[in-house]
Amino acid sequence: MRQSKRGQVDPFLAMDVMRAAAEAEAAGRDIVHMEVGQPATPAPAGARAAVAQALETQPLGYTVALGLPELRQGIADLYKRWYGIDLDPRRVVITSGASGAFLLAFTALFDAGARVGLGEPGYPSYRQILKGLSVEPVGIPTEVQNRYQPVPADVPGDLDGLIVASPGNPSGTMLDAPALRALIEHCAAHDIAFVSDEIYHGLHYERPAVSALEISDDVFVINSFSKYFSMTGWRIGWMVVPESHLRTVERLGQHMFICPSHASQIAALGALGSTEELDGHVANYARNRAMMLEALPKMGFASIAPPDGAFYIYADVSDLTNDSARFAAEILEEVGVAVTPGRDFDADRGARSLRLSYAGSPERIAEGLRRLAQFMAAR
Amino acid sequence: MRQSKRGQVDPFLAMDVMRAAAEAEAAGRDIVHMEVGQPATPAPAGARAAVAQALETQPLGYTVALGLPELRQGIADLYKRWYGIDLDPRRVVITSGASGAFLLAFTALFDAGARVGLGEPGYPSYRQILKGLSVEPVGIPTEVQNRYQPVPADVPGDLDGLIVASPGNPSGTMLDAPALRALIEHCAAHDIAFVSDEIYHGLHYERPAVSALEISDDVFVINSFSKYFSMTGWRIGWMVVPESHLRTVERLGQHMFICPSHASQIAALGALGSTEELDGHVANYARNRAMMLEALPKMGFASIAPPDGAFYIYADVSDLTNDSARFAAEILEEVGVAVTPGRDFDADRGARSLRLSYAGSPERIAEGLRRLAQFMAAR
Repeated sequence: MRQSKRGQVDPFLAMDVMRAAAEAEAAGRDIVHMEVGQPATPAPAGARAAVAQALETQPLGYTVALGLPELRQGIADLYKRWYGIDLDPRRVVITSGASGAFLLAFTALFDAGARVGLGEPGYPSYRQILKGLSVEPVGIPTEVQNRYQPVPADVPGDLDGLIVASPGNPSGTMLDAPALRALIEHCAAHDIAFVSDEIYHGLHYERPAVSALEISDDVFVINSFSKYFSMTGWRIGWMVVPESHLRTVERLGQHMFICPSHASQIAALGALGSTEELDGHVANYARNRAMMLEALPKMGFASIAPPDGAFYIYADVSDLTNDSARFAAEILEEVGVAVTPGRDFDADRGARSLRLSYAGSPERIAEGLRRLAQFMAAR
Repeated sequence: MRQSKRGQVDPFLAMDVMRAAAEAEAAGRDIVHMEVGQPATPAPAGARAAVAQALETQPLGYTVALGLPELRQGIADLYKRWYGIDLDPRRVVITSGASGAFLLAFTALFDAGARVGLGEPGYPSYRQILKGLSVEPVGIPTEVQNRYQPVPADVPGDLDGLIVASPGNPSGTMLDAPALRALIEHCAAHDIAFVSDEIYHGLHYERPAVSALEISDDVFVINSFSKYFSMTGWRIGWMVVPESHLRTVERLGQHMFICPSHASQIAALGALGSTEELDGHVANYARNRAMMLEALPKMGFASIAPPDGAFYIYADVSDLTNDSARFAAEILEEVGVAVTPGRDFDADRGARSLRLSYAGSPERIAEGLRRLAQFMAAR
């Protein structure tokens, strides 16, 4: 049977690492997971209790396409709490994870043949989702002196859109308010739709992450309950859209998704009230991060991106290898630590980069660092 | 900010009816729901118990993109049970509802500009999802003497794909094996990708529904836990794809969805073992259907499609109105029964058609029929 050209997207190589790690575990080895971009913790107790109760008391049929009104209100309240912003809950769209938000945003904004910029290194699925929608991804190589984030001079004026992530994946680096404002104003001046991926907000360690909504209402902001709220597998996220795009997004959502999972929406509502438990997770990530920043340079990972937020360290390992996939395989084989090679994030320079996640428990991260030191000492 | 052309899809009018019915209820009126395409029952007890247990014992993080292996195996077993087919579980792809399956299938099969046929009347979201993906939907008017299903002579040989639903929505009509075979062979001869929407399988009352997989392996088959399994709000479905397309669909799924909701996958696994409870629902739909077929012609709905399956009656009301949206609004206003005008399903003839769902409890359907008789008697 026929296949489309646009369906021929690249695989997600991190998945191969996860599979190799799982196979090693199935064979009886103890593996430290520094490859996965997800918390080791489940959804917070408040989220789980809300679902358990709903299972007993509600049919959990379809919701309206934009999501439960009380959840949209709860997210608007979060913007007040996190950023001091008064956000109209009507502009909040509940989505099937950030993934669902990207599908909705890209189809609402871009026609086939449009060209959309994205910083490299960056989250690989931006590129592949765009390709799957017949939109051309335009890679923008970023520099460590710009915190691996694009600056206006990097962004061609003839683009149709720009996707920015702060904190970024894999880099963990953030755009401060002036840098974010400069990009948003550059895009507004050139009619470039600005999409701000804020999925790692809540996970910052020194200065707070800045939302694009603090700067402009004429942006698409995408976020999720996966990271700070520790709910990856629930596939629940949200998007804040300009009032002008609300009806378009609602109609697309009615047809493309009908609605996000009702149970996941109930869980998300419970998670919004679970601040104490979630801030405990952030305290653990902060401990992990401090351990990483202490240990990695000493063992020979000398060149790392400024780790402002998220739970990743992105290391330039060009002094150690020019084949990071093989290097990662050696680390897994020799000391049982799973890390992600950079190729997913940067087709060119990624062959000389590694991403190390510190989303695990402090005990496991300490163990992983001990093993990594052993690996590096033996080289 | 810019908007895409392809994002300007039509609204789902049934949603407006649901909203009007909900407003009437909020104002204190008792409304009989014959507008919704979802069971009034929750997920089966086995599904709910499985989720409740998983909440206590599992972190419920990401699963692999194609879904839990035991769920894929369970669905393969279902094909043995329902159709006597030996299906390789590797060909089963778990999706975020049938909606997610459509997005994956259409991007894997069709490039921008492709032309895909669909019978009218039919499920409106086919057309709108295709449009959102820059694929051109080609409406194929169908005739009551063909059970409102396309026949080979209706299907132009230059199409890139054809979507067929049996039992259909809104008609409830089915294709028997010879009719389905004729369509599949016609499509194979013209290199037209064949997509079989089998979401209403399990809901048939006289002869069993035939799966496209009983006829060919070179088809995309889409199904869901929403209807027979009574799990609409969980957004969990599946797709069976040819072996040749598996890797393409896996890669697209990794990027576009990461995975379907983990909790919903656990629920689905529980639902597969809940045959007794679910067959009880089907017995209720059968009672409802018998009441509808008895009462509707007597009160003046004389022209209805052969109601083979699903839980819908599609009535030609051209002798009663040429504005079915207004007619439906009058029914809601005067006797408090919500029904769906046909415009969603058939842009032209839908103005003279109504869809009545009998997915509710027998008590409520009996009450709805009593009120409809009263409405018709007063005209």
